[in-house]
Amino acid sequence: MLVFIRMGEDPASRVYVGMKEKTAAQLGIESQTIVFPEATAESVLLERLRSLNSDSQTHGILVQAPLPKHISETIVYRTVAPQKDVDGFHPENVGKLMLGDLSGFVPCTPAGVHELLRRSGIEIPGTRAVVLGRGNIVGKPMTAILLQKAPDANSTVTLCHSRTLNIESHCQAADILIAAIGVPEFVKASMVKPGAVVIDVGVNRIPDPTAKKGSRLVGDVAFDEVQPIAGKITPNPGGVGPMTIAMLMRNTVEAASRMAQQS
Amino acid sequence: MLVFIRMGEDPASRVYVGMKEKTAAQLGIESQTIVFPEATAESVLLERLRSLNSDSQTHGILVQAPLPKHISETIVYRTVAPQKDVDGFHPENVGKLMLGDLSGFVPCTPAGVHELLRRSGIEIPGTRAVVLGRGNIVGKPMTAILLQKAPDANSTVTLCHSRTLNIESHCQAADILIAAIGVPEFVKASMVKPGAVVIDVGVNRIPDPTAKKGSRLVGDVAFDEVQPIAGKITPNPGGVGPMTIAMLMRNTVEAASRMAQQS
Repeated sequence: MLVFIRMGEDPASRVYVGMKEKTAAQLGIESQTIVFPEATAESVLLERLRSLNSDSQTHGILVQAPLPKHISETIVYRTVAPQKDVDGFHPENVGKLMLGDLSGFVPCTPAGVHELLRRSGIEIPGTRAVVLGRGNIVGKPMTAILLQKAPDANSTVTLCHSRTLNIESHCQAADILIAAIGVPEFVKASMVKPGAVVIDVGVNRIPDPTAKKGSRLVGDVAFDEVQPIAGKITPNPGGVGPMTIAMLMRNTVEAASRMAQQS
Repeated sequence: MLVFIRMGEDPASRVYVGMKEKTAAQLGIESQTIVFPEATAESVLLERLRSLNSDSQTHGILVQAPLPKHISETIVYRTVAPQKDVDGFHPENVGKLMLGDLSGFVPCTPAGVHELLRRSGIEIPGTRAVVLGRGNIVGKPMTAILLQKAPDANSTVTLCHSRTLNIESHCQAADILIAAIGVPEFVKASMVKPGAVVIDVGVNRIPDPTAKKGSRLVGDVAFDEVQPIAGKITPNPGGVGPMTIAMLMRNTVEAASRMAQQS
């Protein structure tokens, strides 16, 4: 069973958990969603996590971000048992990824990007990859995946961020450009090498008076102008998002299978 | 107390542990060295590690590499309790470093390089750093340190390795060039940007008929030709090595202090 934990009624969190529940059901993975009121004390959440950690029917635990401000993500992610941490956010799983130790869990979004590259027949070894954004959820683990000594990695990776000088020139040199910087349409056509593979992980809501809600979602890549230059490019939405969910399901099946082997 | 574990009589291991013991003694840190015969079973070593993990007088544990071939470094480093892992090799500590969580331990050699950069007044933010070599002991954690969002980091880092194409051009763009690739005198003058900071982490033994032993130690940097071009450069030996030992001592004091606070 995959257990989702949601704190409060953040609309994006509701949508994300809803999509994950739906996919789990489609695949025949049992799931359960625990909703805590926004004001719940951290200690209550941690207590519940510990009880799920020791519950033999729970194979995977996912605490949906963002969390309310009075709750420390660091402490929450550390409390989920590493072997049930299907999000791959526990320091032990992050460390295993960095070390090239395959016994951990890889965070779902960068794992999804990696799978997408592989399934699209991209030859990763020897490429120059540029990752935009050094977040713990995408940028850093994405870098860790691509730089490994492995037949589907072996890329030379540069991680760029808000303090990078001449970020355009880094982008222009990239064979694989992965944008997870959280700036709407940051990557312009002039920043992309012709034929490059461009992966857009960004999800940004921008005002749009012509839209029904008064706003719309855009990625970190100016899709319309980059598409003609890029060799391959992911749409957004509909590109990386579904892969994230697929990898969550893979991690859950893997967690259950490891638990079954050990019992 | 800092406990060293040595397996067999590898001459380099003897020398390394000897230097660490000596520094500990000079600083007034109690240490103990446990020597296992080369043929000792892995289970015996792991059993001993577990007993040290639960010993309240042991604050730090260091298992000196290289280990005999029948022993898995992965399993050994996972078995040392993270809070006594003064080498910073446990996946949990590696993960904390990657996440920017300061409650772990940072591997000694990259921590020493970082301290050396700071104490030498190098302004790291905004620089372009190139790390040569993706080993778990130096290259990967060095990358993780320099890319963090922190006033003494914020560098844009590229990690190069054996599968990197045009490695020279990466090196030529580096403001800070850190060589940990294990190839004698790999970095030549033509690969260094004038004024760059060059850190040589390599330790390579090469044949030398004129030397007493028939061999001598050289770094990963061709020091004589690179020195006139580099803005700052570390000698080798005598550059990074002593910093590694200093950081080990710092980690040990930190481990003891954290244990004292918790008891």
